[in-house]
Amino acid sequence: MTEKKKTTIVLFSGDYDKAMAAYIIANGAAAYDHEVTIFHTFWGLNALRKDEPIAVKKNFIEKMFGKMMPRGAEKMGLSRMNFAGVGPKMIKDIMKKHNALPLPQLIEMAQEQDVKLVACTMTMDLLGLHKDELLDNIVYAGVAAYLGDAQDGNVNLFI
Amino acid sequence: MTEKKKTTIVLFSGDYDKAMAAYIIANGAAAYDHEVTIFHTFWGLNALRKDEPIAVKKNFIEKMFGKMMPRGAEKMGLSRMNFAGVGPKMIKDIMKKHNALPLPQLIEMAQEQDVKLVACTMTMDLLGLHKDELLDNIVYAGVAAYLGDAQDGNVNLFI
Amino acid sequence: MTEKKKTTIVLFSGDYDKAMAAYIIANGAAAYDHEVTIFHTFWGLNALRKDEPIAVKKNFIEKMFGKMMPRGAEKMGLSRMNFAGVGPKMIKDIMKKHNALPLPQLIEMAQEQDVKLVACTMTMDLLGLHKDELLDNIVYAGVAAYLGDAQDGNVNLFI
Repeated sequence: MTEKKKTTIVLFSGDYDKAMAAYIIANGAAAYDHEVTIFHTFWGLNALRKDEPIAVKKNFIEKMFGKMMPRGAEKMGLSRMNFAGVGPKMIKDIMKKHNALPLPQLIEMAQEQDVKLVACTMTMDLLGLHKDELLDNIVYAGVAAYLGDAQDGNVNLFI
Repeated sequence: MTEKKKTTIVLFSGDYDKAMAAYIIANGAAAYDHEVTIFHTFWGLNALRKDEPIAVKKNFIEKMFGKMMPRGAEKMGLSRMNFAGVGPKMIKDIMKKHNALPLPQLIEMAQEQDVKLVACTMTMDLLGLHKDELLDNIVYAGVAAYLGDAQDGNVNLFI
Repeated sequence: MTEKKKTTIVLFSGDYDKAMAAYIIANGAAAYDHEVTIFHTFWGLNALRKDEPIAVKKNFIEKMFGKMMPRGAEKMGLSRMNFAGVGPKMIKDIMKKHNALPLPQLIEMAQEQDVKLVACTMTMDLLGLHKDELLDNIVYAGVAAYLGDAQDGNVNLFI
């Protein structure tokens, strides 16, 4: 029996386009029968946020961070040509015309293909994000778990 | 016979300095007899654009993207200290004084060393870029081809 | 005897949060008994600068770069929500409250754990940085040395 290939991606960025690249590679690798993990840390956690506000107890700074960071994949901005939010709309229109999947559907597809979506507990703590605010079926772990996955990996990327 | 080592780089960024880093690593790896691939996706495609405008049929949004994105390596900006375009000029002056190769020459050298330069067809489609607008001797492929190269790679980077 | 696993990180970014991610992964890998190298290039070199001004002979442009770039880890900005320097202060306050180590201490810890900290000599030259301006116990090397470390590595990241 041959062992499965492994793809492990750290998604640090909170940009729509970079998250798209991460999920396209992840879905591709899953289709190639890789064992795939996306470890969401820092601003990359925003891709996992539910799009409605969730009532959780937060202190002042956590509330501020919660309001200022995009609530879910749909609301993330572009790494360039964002034009105060017009850029993402343009890109999404073009993607629709080309039948390319938008980010929320790419995330759904990843979950259907058993891509392991991990939220970094240390940065959740720092940014004041609670489990209730994130999508279902997320794994919660830290850098040790990431290294466990990555050290035997074939494709390791930091995005 | 020992197998060749493999270096596979995803160039996502459209920044002059990041593209320089990608091409310096790629040229170094080629000199060490690695099999090297740079997979240009999203804004990284701009590094492969010819520097003159090419007449191709585009719709309104594609034309707009085409005009707003830098036309070729020479016109790309810096990831920081860009200062509305003064930064790249400063960096290029310094590089000249230190006999460091500017980006267009680094790309030429990569082609001479048989570094495989791939343009991501999916994002060409999204950004409305045509083959006629890109440099010669480019390979056109998608995420599946990237994974084929990367999964047996020794050095995999996302830049 | 089994060989040690290897983690090799290129730190290109000059952002406080990205450098933190790099050093957290590096310290984690060192704790897992990996052989760890961080290769600081371009803006990532700023993490290695001493925080006081050092008298070295520089030309006009080198002086300007030296003044404009952050002098050491403590003074680096965030990749997003920087808010003209208020963001880093906020993040550092939160980190303090959560007993998370700030970047300068993460760098110290890395040195105590024998993480190899490399400064890219080519970009030191371009940015006009001198050895006297950088922390002690730094290794000075170029892209060839990086590739020597990376090609046998298990975890290779570009941050």
